[in-house]
Amino acid sequence: MELWYTEKQTEHFGITAKIRETLVTEKTQFQDLAVIDTIEFGRMLVLDGMVMTTVKDEFVYHEMVTHPALFTHPNPKHVLVVGGGDGGAIREVLKHPEVEKAVLVDIDGKVIEYSRKFLPEIAGMLDDPRVEVRVNDGYMHIHEHKNTYDVVMVDSTEPVGPAVQLFERGFYQAIFEALKEDGIFVAQTDNPWFKADLIRKVQKDVKEIFPVTRLYQANIPTYPSGLWTFTMGSKKYDPLQVDETRIPELDTKYYSPSIHKAAFVLPKFVEELTK
Amino acid sequence: MELWYTEKQTEHFGITAKIRETLVTEKTQFQDLAVIDTIEFGRMLVLDGMVMTTVKDEFVYHEMVTHPALFTHPNPKHVLVVGGGDGGAIREVLKHPEVEKAVLVDIDGKVIEYSRKFLPEIAGMLDDPRVEVRVNDGYMHIHEHKNTYDVVMVDSTEPVGPAVQLFERGFYQAIFEALKEDGIFVAQTDNPWFKADLIRKVQKDVKEIFPVTRLYQANIPTYPSGLWTFTMGSKKYDPLQVDETRIPELDTKYYSPSIHKAAFVLPKFVEELTK
Repeated sequence: MELWYTEKQTEHFGITAKIRETLVTEKTQFQDLAVIDTIEFGRMLVLDGMVMTTVKDEFVYHEMVTHPALFTHPNPKHVLVVGGGDGGAIREVLKHPEVEKAVLVDIDGKVIEYSRKFLPEIAGMLDDPRVEVRVNDGYMHIHEHKNTYDVVMVDSTEPVGPAVQLFERGFYQAIFEALKEDGIFVAQTDNPWFKADLIRKVQKDVKEIFPVTRLYQANIPTYPSGLWTFTMGSKKYDPLQVDETRIPELDTKYYSPSIHKAAFVLPKFVEELTK
Repeated sequence: MELWYTEKQTEHFGITAKIRETLVTEKTQFQDLAVIDTIEFGRMLVLDGMVMTTVKDEFVYHEMVTHPALFTHPNPKHVLVVGGGDGGAIREVLKHPEVEKAVLVDIDGKVIEYSRKFLPEIAGMLDDPRVEVRVNDGYMHIHEHKNTYDVVMVDSTEPVGPAVQLFERGFYQAIFEALKEDGIFVAQTDNPWFKADLIRKVQKDVKEIFPVTRLYQANIPTYPSGLWTFTMGSKKYDPLQVDETRIPELDTKYYSPSIHKAAFVLPKFVEELTK
C-alpha cells in the first residue's frame, strides 16, 4: 500500500509526498496537528493541513527568519519568538553569543510537546538555560510588554485559525511598543505567487509604523511556490547598511554573509509589492 | 468530475494541479507531449510527464536563461537556442536590439507546432524576421558549426530521453568550439535539492573547458523544489564584472539590473556545489 500526503496549497494546486508512517495526528485545543514521516523530506510537522517544517528543508526557514535581523541589530540581548513552537528559530537565535535571553511564546503546548518528542534535531535547544518557554497567547504577551525586546520574530502559521490577529496592523503597533528604542521585528509573510495582496498589505501596515521596512526572500521547497518572504520592520538599523565583511561565518546551510544582502534583492514582480 | 495533473518530481514527491481541459496529448517521434489547461498556472506544456513551461510562470525561466548572458556579452549579434521549441527564450533574445540573428534548433517539430497553436503568448515571436527555426538535432547542429555564435543557450528538457547527450562533457567542448572567441554559453542545470550531483558534475565539466564558469539561480514554482539553476560558461566576459548601472531597464517581470548579480549569490549549500 502506498500512502501519500497531499496538501492543497491553493484551491487548485498542491504538493504530494509519499509517507513511511504517521507518528501522530491530534486535534489540539487550537488546531489539527500531525507529524508524518515522508521519504523525500523526512519528518514533517503539519498544522491545519499545512506543512510547517520538515527535517530536510527546515534550515532555510529557521536560518532566514533569524540571522538577517540578529546580524542587523548590533547587540541583540533579549529576543522573543512568537509562535515557532518547533524550536527551530530558537536554535538559530542561540548561535548568537550576545543573546542573554530567548523567550518562546507559542499558544499551543502540543506543538512544543510533539516537536520535542518527534523532531529533536529542530526542538533540541529548547532546554538551553538561556531559553524561556511559555505556553501562552503571543498576541497577549506582546500587548503586555513594553520596551522589552531587542528583536521580535513572528514565526506564525498562515493567517487562518489562531494566527489571524498576528497579521493585523494593531499587532505590529504593539510589537513596536514591545521593542526597545532600537529594536527590530521580522515576520514570515507568505509567498508572492499566491498571496501578493497579503504581502502588499503587510508592507503598507509596517511602513506606517516602522522607520525602516524591508522585504526579503528565501527558497523553501515545501512551502507554496518555493519562494518565501519575510517582512522586517526596524526602528533604527537598516539591514542593507550592515557591513557584510564583519558578519562572522556561522554554522549554517543557507544563510551566509553574502546572502544577507542578496536576500533583499527581489525579482521585479516581488519588488513591485513593496511600492 | 475533478481532473488533476500530478507530476512525480522525484520518486517520492510531486506537484498536483487541477485542470480545466486537456488540449492535446500525443506521442511524438521523440517524447510524450501534452498541453493542458490548469486553473492555477494556465496552459502548461508537459513533455515526458514533466512540466516544461506554464503561461503563469514561464517568464522566470525564459528571462533568466536569456538576459544574464546577453547582458554579459557586450555585443551579442548571433544567438543560438538549442531546444526551447516553445519559443519563450527566443522572445526574450529579441528584446536585445543588437541581436541580428536568433537560431532555434529543436529536435521535435511537434513542440514548436503545438506551442504556436496553444501557447501564442510564448511562441508568438518565432515568426520574427530575425529568427531562423530549424527542426533538427541540436547536438549535431553544435558539432557542425565552428566559431559561429556569440551566445549559445541550452534550453533542454531534463537529462532523460532525447536530452541525455546535452549534459555530456563532449557537448560542452563542442559548444566551446561553436562559439566565437569571446562567446558565452548557458544551460539550465536543474535544482540543488534533488539533483545536487548533476550540478556538481556540470560545474566540473564546464570549468575544465571555459575560463569563466558561474552558477546562478531563479525561483520557478512549477519546477522541482522551486529553485532552478543555470550554469554559464564564458570565454572572456564575467557576468559578475558587468556594470549593472549600465544595464537598461527591459520589459521584464523577474530580471532586473539588480537581480543580474544577486542571482549569482547562492545559498551556502548551493555554493558548495561549485567548489
